[in-house]
Amino acid sequence: MRDKFQKELEELNEEIIEMGKMIVYDIQNAVKALVTQDINLAKEAIQYDSSIDRQERNIEHLCLKLLLEQQPVAGDLRIISSALKMITDMERIGDHAADISELTILMAKESYIKHLEHIQLMAEISMTMLSESLDAYVEKDLKKAEAVIKRDDEVDDLFDKVKNELINIIHENVNDGEQAANLLMTAKYMERIGDHATNISEWVIFSITGKHEEEQ
Amino acid sequence: MRDKFQKELEELNEEIIEMGKMIVYDIQNAVKALVTQDINLAKEAIQYDSSIDRQERNIEHLCLKLLLEQQPVAGDLRIISSALKMITDMERIGDHAADISELTILMAKESYIKHLEHIQLMAEISMTMLSESLDAYVEKDLKKAEAVIKRDDEVDDLFDKVKNELINIIHENVNDGEQAANLLMTAKYMERIGDHATNISEWVIFSITGKHEEEQ
Repeated sequence: MRDKFQKELEELNEEIIEMGKMIVYDIQNAVKALVTQDINLAKEAIQYDSSIDRQERNIEHLCLKLLLEQQPVAGDLRIISSALKMITDMERIGDHAADISELTILMAKESYIKHLEHIQLMAEISMTMLSESLDAYVEKDLKKAEAVIKRDDEVDDLFDKVKNELINIIHENVNDGEQAANLLMTAKYMERIGDHATNISEWVIFSITGKHEEEQ
Repeated sequence: MRDKFQKELEELNEEIIEMGKMIVYDIQNAVKALVTQDINLAKEAIQYDSSIDRQERNIEHLCLKLLLEQQPVAGDLRIISSALKMITDMERIGDHAADISELTILMAKESYIKHLEHIQLMAEISMTMLSESLDAYVEKDLKKAEAVIKRDDEVDDLFDKVKNELINIIHENVNDGEQAANLLMTAKYMERIGDHATNISEWVIFSITGKHEEEQ
């Protein structure tokens, strides 16, 4: 019984890591589509969201099965309930890949009014945060999870930079306003992705310590 | 067996209508908090999102139970699979109530640079769209569902109006840029809420006709 439980927990870890890889793939495609103005790739990133949703459902059923069959307590219960929370945040990152791709399609026929390197960097940092969070979950590595949370400031600072830049562009040339508004929303979705990666690390910390971030 | 199935389908309808009411309540609170700059109410609207998530899970389990126990085909299968899709869109509206409330908290200490009547109107129309969609689902009323989809243009037009107004404000006074950017994102979330209400009606049409909007 105990062996079966350990095996199912390992399966849960594998599925969570797999979902993480799917999210990274989706965000990378969404950003590539944005930067290269590739409408087909943007549509693919939107479509792919439903595969992520399916993977979320798979993991959810695995968690419910574990809860019902094994009735775990304390540490094991926390691992499973954290997994349930983490996949909600992951699924929302997938939603944002679709949100960004819809803006990409809107802007696909215009030349960009600014370089997108800060938005790309926001995506890179967020995806590193996500991968490190999931490593921390599997390895039960508290320090790694805490390091992820600190990195969210970098994403927030980049968002403020992009926002101020776009405000200045609109201030100088109202004709660029439409695209600046779309880029602002793109950056906002990236910033939210960083928030979700942070939430995931907070759940990892809970799964290890039994304490929520705010209580620590 | 058939009677039990009908009873469970009725229960499903009731739970969906209940989830719809929860969403309307949440959005109304989020908008009220925005307009009156009420931080506590905004925090409540954020918290309430988890009740909506729980209701989504309840309905999902009810749908899975129906699918497993009754193995429905054709029309009944469509009703249940549409319900599963509809609750995903509803849950995302709940997420946006939280997103809007976080922006409300950010702006709570400043006087507004513009009236918010268009944003309020976007919320009102979207919530009418949502309620009518769910009525159409329960009543299997194709015309009602089609009418909802047409109303999304009103929400989109209001968004364009708000966006242009905010672009002009930033153009004229860069110091208002920060708040204008926050209001723009608030309006964008409202516009997305209209999109989700539209999606819900498209699923209602599918549940009745077996055809997706684009095929019609």
